[in-house]
Amino acid sequence: MILEVAILYIKDNQEKDFENNMRKASKIIAAQKGYISHEVKKCLEKKNKYILLVNWKTLIDHEHIFRNSKDYQEWKKLLHHFYEPFPIVEHYKSIKYE
Amino acid sequence: MILEVAILYIKDNQEKDFENNMRKASKIIAAQKGYISHEVKKCLEKKNKYILLVNWKTLIDHEHIFRNSKDYQEWKKLLHHFYEPFPIVEHYKSIKYE
Repeated sequence: MILEVAILYIKDNQEKDFENNMRKASKIIAAQKGYISHEVKKCLEKKNKYILLVNWKTLIDHEHIFRNSKDYQEWKKLLHHFYEPFPIVEHYKSIKYE
Repeated sequence: MILEVAILYIKDNQEKDFENNMRKASKIIAAQKGYISHEVKKCLEKKNKYILLVNWKTLIDHEHIFRNSKDYQEWKKLLHHFYEPFPIVEHYKSIKYE
């Protein structure tokens, strides 16, 4: 399992519109191959900051299959215009203890 | 419920020692008032980067009760010397839809 992490900064005064579009976009991501679960949360300390956390079965499910899909075009259309700067997305895995 | 998020950068070549100490420290955090769950994960893209996610019942449980406790001194002793730079910790809450 891979955790996708994106810290999102939303353009001033667009937080409510972003939240509404993210609610629509949640249905898109939840329907993808390899999707396990996701959360979108709002920062308490900075009003235009959010975090997106998505659990995927594999990195390929996110980076290759989802990002090359038609659904991703829909996701982009709903969300990408809210971001400034454009987010860096990273992936995390559980620590393996020997 | 409040999600604590800390992005952690570990000093070069200290990743294994950090992981071992974090395993010990996990028992400390799991015993705190208001603790719900936590995860520590390793970044795939940057070798010395980790994320700590902790779910707390309230912000006070984390910021006041835990940080002013004796256990926090133990937590610090186990972990803080690995960080460079010292992490910014932020808190996130669920989005409320009207």
